[in-house]
Amino acid sequence: MEETKKTLTRRGFLKTAGATAAVAGLAAGGSALTPWSAEAAALPKKWDQTVDVVVIGSGFAGLAAAYEAKKAGASVIVLEKMRTPGGNSIINGGVVSAAGSPKEKEQGVEDSPELLLKDMLTAGLYLNHVELAKMVADRSWPTVQWTMEELGVKYKDKLSQEGGHSVPRMYSTYNQSGSAIVQQQLAKLKGLGVVPKTQSYLTQIYRDADGRVKGVQIREKYVFPDANSGKMKNIKARKAVVMASGGFGNDVAFRTIQDPRLTAEFPSTNQPGATAEALRESLRVGCTPVQLSWIQLGPWGSPDEKGMGLSPFFAQLLGAMYGLWVDTKTGKRFVNELADRKIRADAIIKAGNKCIAFTDAAGYAFGQKAIAEALPKLMERGVVKKYETIDDMAAAYDIPAGPLKETIEKWNKSVLAGKDEEWGRYLQKNQKPLGPGPWYALRLTPKIHHCMGGLNINTNAQALDVMTDKPIPGLYAAGEVTGGVHGAVRLGSCATLDCLIFGRIAGQNAAAEKNWG
Amino acid sequence: MEETKKTLTRRGFLKTAGATAAVAGLAAGGSALTPWSAEAAALPKKWDQTVDVVVIGSGFAGLAAAYEAKKAGASVIVLEKMRTPGGNSIINGGVVSAAGSPKEKEQGVEDSPELLLKDMLTAGLYLNHVELAKMVADRSWPTVQWTMEELGVKYKDKLSQEGGHSVPRMYSTYNQSGSAIVQQQLAKLKGLGVVPKTQSYLTQIYRDADGRVKGVQIREKYVFPDANSGKMKNIKARKAVVMASGGFGNDVAFRTIQDPRLTAEFPSTNQPGATAEALRESLRVGCTPVQLSWIQLGPWGSPDEKGMGLSPFFAQLLGAMYGLWVDTKTGKRFVNELADRKIRADAIIKAGNKCIAFTDAAGYAFGQKAIAEALPKLMERGVVKKYETIDDMAAAYDIPAGPLKETIEKWNKSVLAGKDEEWGRYLQKNQKPLGPGPWYALRLTPKIHHCMGGLNINTNAQALDVMTDKPIPGLYAAGEVTGGVHGAVRLGSCATLDCLIFGRIAGQNAAAEKNWG
Repeated sequence: MEETKKTLTRRGFLKTAGATAAVAGLAAGGSALTPWSAEAAALPKKWDQTVDVVVIGSGFAGLAAAYEAKKAGASVIVLEKMRTPGGNSIINGGVVSAAGSPKEKEQGVEDSPELLLKDMLTAGLYLNHVELAKMVADRSWPTVQWTMEELGVKYKDKLSQEGGHSVPRMYSTYNQSGSAIVQQQLAKLKGLGVVPKTQSYLTQIYRDADGRVKGVQIREKYVFPDANSGKMKNIKARKAVVMASGGFGNDVAFRTIQDPRLTAEFPSTNQPGATAEALRESLRVGCTPVQLSWIQLGPWGSPDEKGMGLSPFFAQLLGAMYGLWVDTKTGKRFVNELADRKIRADAIIKAGNKCIAFTDAAGYAFGQKAIAEALPKLMERGVVKKYETIDDMAAAYDIPAGPLKETIEKWNKSVLAGKDEEWGRYLQKNQKPLGPGPWYALRLTPKIHHCMGGLNINTNAQALDVMTDKPIPGLYAAGEVTGGVHGAVRLGSCATLDCLIFGRIAGQNAAAEKNWG
Repeated sequence: MEETKKTLTRRGFLKTAGATAAVAGLAAGGSALTPWSAEAAALPKKWDQTVDVVVIGSGFAGLAAAYEAKKAGASVIVLEKMRTPGGNSIINGGVVSAAGSPKEKEQGVEDSPELLLKDMLTAGLYLNHVELAKMVADRSWPTVQWTMEELGVKYKDKLSQEGGHSVPRMYSTYNQSGSAIVQQQLAKLKGLGVVPKTQSYLTQIYRDADGRVKGVQIREKYVFPDANSGKMKNIKARKAVVMASGGFGNDVAFRTIQDPRLTAEFPSTNQPGATAEALRESLRVGCTPVQLSWIQLGPWGSPDEKGMGLSPFFAQLLGAMYGLWVDTKTGKRFVNELADRKIRADAIIKAGNKCIAFTDAAGYAFGQKAIAEALPKLMERGVVKKYETIDDMAAAYDIPAGPLKETIEKWNKSVLAGKDEEWGRYLQKNQKPLGPGPWYALRLTPKIHHCMGGLNINTNAQALDVMTDKPIPGLYAAGEVTGGVHGAVRLGSCATLDCLIFGRIAGQNAAAEKNWG
């Protein structure tokens, strides 16, 4: 596995130096300096390059920050450690919530920023930093509008719904991927003359004795995950550094400190570079940790494909919104299929990780429009399988056929009655009883998906100091590297908002800083 | 409120200096230096005092560390910021679990370290650092034995049981307070010539450019909570510094970063000095944060007394182990009265914080022996009230009398049947049906009690570096300032073990370090 290999390599590297010797070793190697060291605090004698704003990371947040900073007249560099830009954003599902959008009105959905905020706080177990969550809810529709009008992002007509949301309020990109947003961000940035520098690995943040962050040290031409690859370079940030380095879902060492259950055996939806080095470095220079132990599992993964894959489209739109999720041991439903991610992932684990999502012929026909690109691939790859009868489907997954038929009958009665008495699931406006076949099913497994915790920021996207809770001058942070917006549990389609909203704020504020020199 | 005043004072102090100016301001004031500063990393030109081992904090963990280090031949200083030693330990409930003790065998309780570990992991939602939790379970009985044989602590004969424990395995000190242990620790230490230096406030940990922690800066004659009081002093630690500074349950600013629900309005069982400055300083010099957002509420508090008070004795021993807890709105039980603290606290909050614990005449008679000192005080202060009949008790708390009587009848049937079908509560060996009266009742409210999260340590009690996950040379940590032992939820009577076990290990290992100079 990519992530295991990476971790071993890094650990191996660190192991070569003893506890104390590590300091000299690392410093001599030019890699991460130590938090306590006077040399670490000192600025380099010579800067190899000077810009106004340095952005670490090239996902939604980093690109949004770079765009706003550049538009405001700042010179900008975007540093990305991997070979290609986009981070996890470019492989994300491409759905963005907008509360109070014109499309909701068209489609008869009653919604408001207040309702979205309520949904976020409920899922977040009220651990959310409310002032940050409120900004996400309030700016949800204006931000989607901005992606359309300024970036030129195209969305499908039909709104969809993820678990934990009270109503269907999600815009879906035309290609069902965050790449539709990232590519537009990259194109707009290129138009302004900014192209992310890939294979550029952050090794140090320079925080001066006056408390201000003044630049970074990187390895250029770095080859992930070799910590000794590439060449050292010091970049001066005359205005500010923006941390938009993402989460640590694929960092087995760091994630097991926070949640020891999530060993290397656990699958993840993240790209291999979703590791914690930049987060650790931010903590080293005095950022404040928030809620690091809340790591989200996506409930809609499949053990029959790697990474995020395409299974969420089927599990969510065809399985959870229209069809059913059942425990194969009992043939019964075991959770509200539209509950939030934590509730559903915990329920699958509790059911011994032996559950399927399925739909009927009508659901499949709907899917041929709604997820036109994903569905044939899921079938070809055998991630979704077709069964002529309920008995065939039951036999394939070792489900007791009688109880499975009863489950479908019971659900159909609920649909006709207009209320899901058993689990309280929201019924879609076009919801119809299930059947006849053929039937289509997918095996479910939770996958590590998102780190709710991270650095403490304020509504200006300023990183806050662990000693004083005041902003660290010259340091901003946005996106998955930060914590607090989502509390204990993030709702689907809210991360993209979080990244774009605070990325833009960070970029605007970074550009407005005075040059320190 | 003490904690509010304190926070305001500290915040007010910090507010006097601007974001950047704060650096110079704080440094000039001689208070906490800044994480990034070269001056902070530099050692002082002159040390005012030199010892082998510096211990920060004088609760169970700090005193255990000091005792072991001194016994091993090291010179030791114990620094305590408050006017009196003992921290939260001296006001703790004085119960310590011992799995596999001779007393369990005497009393017919089947138990083992494996069962205690299982209970800890179940309550901890498997977020525990298992290797640390296992040490607590394995050393539980040897540690209680050590407190008796080496410290001379005296315990009652009868074992008791806290929520989340499968069996009654808790030793209770003769005076129902952790002070019975702390006083013995202080006496033994005094015998070795060590007396804690009170009013000594940690302002800085010196971590040198070679990565080693080499001493501390303190304010002597500090008057809590005035950050400008006292006089600066530098103390060299030739071998090591042990952080045993406790939790941050009374630090509103820091606790609301991690759990925004826990505002200043929330009551706490902690002493006023349970604040986060030393934890923040440890993070500043490169310690790793673990699970900081898991803050425990004790379910057995009473709104009719301040702090920890004496209510837990009644709520737990008389209410939960023998009597019942009911929701006053319904007259019904609402939780397994012996479930873990999180389950019970969440259940009380969900029930609108309107619940009581009660017992009958027989339970009261038992209490006259079991909690002989606490019970008369609880009655005198009106925290526990007496009612001649069930109707009187129902009227006093506005409980519907019919359902309350049904609840008691149903419970009595369960007792006779030998099984609590409704909530699965463990039935005590001497459990009898409730009644007749008089009845005794107490109002319940959850209180902030314990911080599960803190600094990352290994089984040697070494503090681990945020960049490398390796030990920080010369820095140990033990007790509530650390994280990982208890995971998401701490079981009652396991904190004292945690503190004593890792405090002793820290002291032994600190004394075994080589002098650096």
